[in-house]
Amino acid sequence: MPKMKAAVFVEPGRIVLEDKPIPDIGPLDALVRITTTTICGTDVHILKGEYPVARGLTVGHEPVGVIEKLGSAVEGYEEGQRVVAGAITPSGWSNACLCGACSQDGAGTAHGWKPMGGWRFGNTIDGCQAEYVRVPDAMANLARVPDGLTDEQVLMCPDIMSTGFGGAESAGIRIGDIVAVFAQGPIGLCATAGAKLCGASVVIGVDRLPERLAMARRMGADHVIDASRVDPVEEIARLTGGRGVDVAIEALGTQQTFESCLRVLRPGGTLSSLGVYSTDLKIPLGAFAAGLGDHKIVTTLCPGGKERMRRLMSVIERGRIDLGAMVTHRYRLDDIETAYELFGQQRDGVLKIAITP
Amino acid sequence: MPKMKAAVFVEPGRIVLEDKPIPDIGPLDALVRITTTTICGTDVHILKGEYPVARGLTVGHEPVGVIEKLGSAVEGYEEGQRVVAGAITPSGWSNACLCGACSQDGAGTAHGWKPMGGWRFGNTIDGCQAEYVRVPDAMANLARVPDGLTDEQVLMCPDIMSTGFGGAESAGIRIGDIVAVFAQGPIGLCATAGAKLCGASVVIGVDRLPERLAMARRMGADHVIDASRVDPVEEIARLTGGRGVDVAIEALGTQQTFESCLRVLRPGGTLSSLGVYSTDLKIPLGAFAAGLGDHKIVTTLCPGGKERMRRLMSVIERGRIDLGAMVTHRYRLDDIETAYELFGQQRDGVLKIAITP
Amino acid sequence: MPKMKAAVFVEPGRIVLEDKPIPDIGPLDALVRITTTTICGTDVHILKGEYPVARGLTVGHEPVGVIEKLGSAVEGYEEGQRVVAGAITPSGWSNACLCGACSQDGAGTAHGWKPMGGWRFGNTIDGCQAEYVRVPDAMANLARVPDGLTDEQVLMCPDIMSTGFGGAESAGIRIGDIVAVFAQGPIGLCATAGAKLCGASVVIGVDRLPERLAMARRMGADHVIDASRVDPVEEIARLTGGRGVDVAIEALGTQQTFESCLRVLRPGGTLSSLGVYSTDLKIPLGAFAAGLGDHKIVTTLCPGGKERMRRLMSVIERGRIDLGAMVTHRYRLDDIETAYELFGQQRDGVLKIAITP
Amino acid sequence: MPKMKAAVFVEPGRIVLEDKPIPDIGPLDALVRITTTTICGTDVHILKGEYPVARGLTVGHEPVGVIEKLGSAVEGYEEGQRVVAGAITPSGWSNACLCGACSQDGAGTAHGWKPMGGWRFGNTIDGCQAEYVRVPDAMANLARVPDGLTDEQVLMCPDIMSTGFGGAESAGIRIGDIVAVFAQGPIGLCATAGAKLCGASVVIGVDRLPERLAMARRMGADHVIDASRVDPVEEIARLTGGRGVDVAIEALGTQQTFESCLRVLRPGGTLSSLGVYSTDLKIPLGAFAAGLGDHKIVTTLCPGGKERMRRLMSVIERGRIDLGAMVTHRYRLDDIETAYELFGQQRDGVLKIAITP
Repeated sequence: MPKMKAAVFVEPGRIVLEDKPIPDIGPLDALVRITTTTICGTDVHILKGEYPVARGLTVGHEPVGVIEKLGSAVEGYEEGQRVVAGAITPSGWSNACLCGACSQDGAGTAHGWKPMGGWRFGNTIDGCQAEYVRVPDAMANLARVPDGLTDEQVLMCPDIMSTGFGGAESAGIRIGDIVAVFAQGPIGLCATAGAKLCGASVVIGVDRLPERLAMARRMGADHVIDASRVDPVEEIARLTGGRGVDVAIEALGTQQTFESCLRVLRPGGTLSSLGVYSTDLKIPLGAFAAGLGDHKIVTTLCPGGKERMRRLMSVIERGRIDLGAMVTHRYRLDDIETAYELFGQQRDGVLKIAITP
Repeated sequence: MPKMKAAVFVEPGRIVLEDKPIPDIGPLDALVRITTTTICGTDVHILKGEYPVARGLTVGHEPVGVIEKLGSAVEGYEEGQRVVAGAITPSGWSNACLCGACSQDGAGTAHGWKPMGGWRFGNTIDGCQAEYVRVPDAMANLARVPDGLTDEQVLMCPDIMSTGFGGAESAGIRIGDIVAVFAQGPIGLCATAGAKLCGASVVIGVDRLPERLAMARRMGADHVIDASRVDPVEEIARLTGGRGVDVAIEALGTQQTFESCLRVLRPGGTLSSLGVYSTDLKIPLGAFAAGLGDHKIVTTLCPGGKERMRRLMSVIERGRIDLGAMVTHRYRLDDIETAYELFGQQRDGVLKIAITP
Repeated sequence: MPKMKAAVFVEPGRIVLEDKPIPDIGPLDALVRITTTTICGTDVHILKGEYPVARGLTVGHEPVGVIEKLGSAVEGYEEGQRVVAGAITPSGWSNACLCGACSQDGAGTAHGWKPMGGWRFGNTIDGCQAEYVRVPDAMANLARVPDGLTDEQVLMCPDIMSTGFGGAESAGIRIGDIVAVFAQGPIGLCATAGAKLCGASVVIGVDRLPERLAMARRMGADHVIDASRVDPVEEIARLTGGRGVDVAIEALGTQQTFESCLRVLRPGGTLSSLGVYSTDLKIPLGAFAAGLGDHKIVTTLCPGGKERMRRLMSVIERGRIDLGAMVTHRYRLDDIETAYELFGQQRDGVLKIAITP
Repeated sequence: MPKMKAAVFVEPGRIVLEDKPIPDIGPLDALVRITTTTICGTDVHILKGEYPVARGLTVGHEPVGVIEKLGSAVEGYEEGQRVVAGAITPSGWSNACLCGACSQDGAGTAHGWKPMGGWRFGNTIDGCQAEYVRVPDAMANLARVPDGLTDEQVLMCPDIMSTGFGGAESAGIRIGDIVAVFAQGPIGLCATAGAKLCGASVVIGVDRLPERLAMARRMGADHVIDASRVDPVEEIARLTGGRGVDVAIEALGTQQTFESCLRVLRPGGTLSSLGVYSTDLKIPLGAFAAGLGDHKIVTTLCPGGKERMRRLMSVIERGRIDLGAMVTHRYRLDDIETAYELFGQQRDGVLKIAITP
């Protein structure tokens, strides 16, 4: 049985590179040889044991690669094609999918819904920090990479670009909106870019790190606020003449940023939440206008599926956004444990790491 | 200066009937002689001092009456016409109104937005538990009552019907949705009716009082749950085969009902919040899927304006809902203090009280 | 090779009952034994040669039946279960499906879109006026029939109920809308019911046949207009005080009804078109306000998929609509040629015919 | 009685500069001294008698100026402030406005709706090709011009920018959409810019004039098609690999462009129509998929009101679009007849003419 290298969750604190069998595939699957992948903040949660996955699971959910083999029932693809798949791999046929909620895919449950059920790679099935990955429901998930685009150019499509843009889209941003984005990590930066792309006239980026604020400006932020120096809630009130923002995007996953989002919203505004929280959240009564402010709070799990990937790649292809600058480091799969250490500690100005088997 | 009787907030715990001058009107106003009005749960919050208003303010925000006098710039109406106005009286010309957020009208502020700014009657200007009321921005707010409808038939339009229906509408209920409505007071009952009217196939009403559950059935609930006897979260899980509801409507304003709404939602579902809260709210991490459940939380302040009133009255006129049964008691304005006592203590199965000057 | 009976298109003017092999199924398919099906107006277009299909094709697209056999890759079902499938059978995995446009499924094309591509039964693959039918992409399409519902109760779900309701939904009907539905054949009747279900306060049904107008009232029409006796455009202007309707639904497929819909719309209103047209259409300049009336024209092809079927059946199960009365005639499959003759000539007050193998 | 100069419609073929009294204002009005205005294609329709207005009416609907005088009931403004108002001046209080359809404002009618009723300047009341203009419902319509913006920078806000952007917005453009814009006159150019601003990844501009195609590129078109040399329908089919576009915007007002829009749409796509038509329109059966293609046709009349103007100016202020290049010519009001001649004949590469009293 042929073997491959894969980054495997062993126990809290330990993700190690191991030899595992190359996956078998079923009739609807594809086997993809990974050419580039990356590490996500969620993987660090998994590493720390904050988000539980099965021991022995291959982690990683951002695959760029080449079709190695197709399941017997898969049509419309050929071996050797360059492809990308989303971090979320909807089945297409669950009740959730057919209701427009692909990320909450409950294929296999009696009723067709499961929280986060569309997130399978590195969560409920083996992921893509490996030489090969099995892509389930391949016809719904494999998107061909246009010839002109490099692996690194499309590396953000599977997760952070889809998630960040999704935060802007779910908020229903309209032409002329004022938008604040709290935290300018990879997802927040994509939300900043996404807000501009949706027509916001003013985007305000908030973070505590100067290099991230600088990157926020590159992604289109009109104003940046260093939350380590000024109170962003007060500063946004000042910038907007007391009006507040139409949309506030939370991209960190903490009580403080969530709450700040609410506090900077105009009445009737929308809080679009992207962060993965690790505690209960508090909604302050005043910022919520006691429930009478016509506020909306929306959460978005990374949209997946091949059509989503196609659209995101078309945005990149047309030069409407350049996420290449986010790849700050490059490692071989062999050195992924070192990469995890760097990324987990957020050393050396790291934003995203390209991993190549 | 001619005088009238009016229910006035004096201090926490005291709303009393006083003589006040009949209001003067400006060019855009109308003076309406009240023929029927009612007491709202919010008025009880005011009475208790939980929601602060100016001392000496006339309370009440649900006017049905007759045009007594029109401002010099008001066109399209005649004295003597029977009219109703919403609890919320948008100006029509604020930035908030022109942006579709009439309830958050900030007419008079520099930027045109104010939390709850559209709520003026009995909040920032004198209200309608009186013989006369000044209706501001009359052309935006006065809706003629069709001849065939009685005062009591339209008495719920200004607030509870508009609010309850608004909760169903803001949730985006679609044909075939399963909806739970937590609390079956007047607003919850209207939300139950509104959910059916929007196409829900299954509406589940939750309360602790048998008579309210009985009324919920009259308003269209398919299932009712007595929360004093069973755990509604478990019961709804059972009724839906573990799937959860598409929409949960909160109609009480407590942590417990808010939280239960989240717990019964399917992934991707919508919590539509109508309650007036008096404490910070907690969002439980698990019920919120750590922010990854594609949940939406929307809040709705009672939609107002003459077009809204016209639409609600057309629903009543066509017999699509009968809210007459909600008027459980009738009092003269002279006896309004007694009515407050009864309503504040929720005695005698009271739902709504018709007050006639 | 086992044989079955099937209604087959031979040439314009001839659909005949023939013996054909029972279909083979692939890994994603299911074989369903038909217990009840029906004839649609579209089938009559096919019969007449107005809508071309391949010679030898089994016609019919409204299957109610029992699972006889499951493809090797199909999970979540068992043989012997009672099921229904929509007239439109989306794959779930095409770009169109993943973009929310399941009816325009282009599975198998390079780009994933094909006009009407989701309509396969009796159009591009063998249909269900037969003893057995192969259901493609079974996991996306088979919906279990609740135990309490008879075949005839769910017989309208696959097409006319889904289409008629879809016309109301696509129009974005809101609480308090005034809606006109032009033509009260089976689809128009379902549109009438759907408009009510979406919250319309006033629905006006238009037709030329008294029995259809009577049925329109049963389905919830508030007013009916006999277009053979009065001009419906004038009558609707009168009924609405010159305002016009918020939504006009076209349910016949002729220039006259299309044009009348435009003429009765209020400015900013929506024409929701369901008819299958057979000629170019004309938009009259005046009724279209020269393009400046903020009008919308939306067309809807019958929504399919198992989640849609589940929702429609839940509406029936809860007693929110009774379409049973639409089954005016019953025939054995053996007599389907007679049924076509009756239905094609619209004799004997026929609305829908239940066909049982 | 003080006099002013004004461009007045005398009879078909003649708009002349005349002396007229400076307008009186009512309590809700403002008198604005025009500092810059422009001529619109619609004005040429008026000049030619194709769109009828009253003889003696001052034409023009694009005002930039300074508040000269405020009506007695107008609050929140001061004389001397620089302001802009939309071509459409909604009342804010009509049923149409309160229903979100401000352009179809029927203030003054019994039911509150009138086709194009929000368009008053140079249509039903005196317009702004004059030294002064009366702005009705001033509080709903006057938007302050930010200090940093010149008259010419905001000159496109009242009409073509609002209309062009509106065409993109009404179409519901999403991130990654492919959009075709037929005709690249001023409104088409703004639609091109608006489509990019809404997130389109590919915008295809079609026209017959090289200079307009060049300008289309400046406004963000990814591809331009010279319809005098190639068939745009075939060319778009080629560019999209046979898929078609998600949205086609019509910006000319002819049968040919309308029809081409339909022909290039993917199934389920949206035709967003901005043109002012002068004949009945034909919908070709095939391009319309016989009514089964899930197509949408939406029309948009220029959105107005002060909030709209504020938003558009914020887009300009943030440098997201530069419409200054569209001002190709400048004339004094005294020479407006010459300007009409130039503009009416589309000589000298004219796009927009700044007129200064």
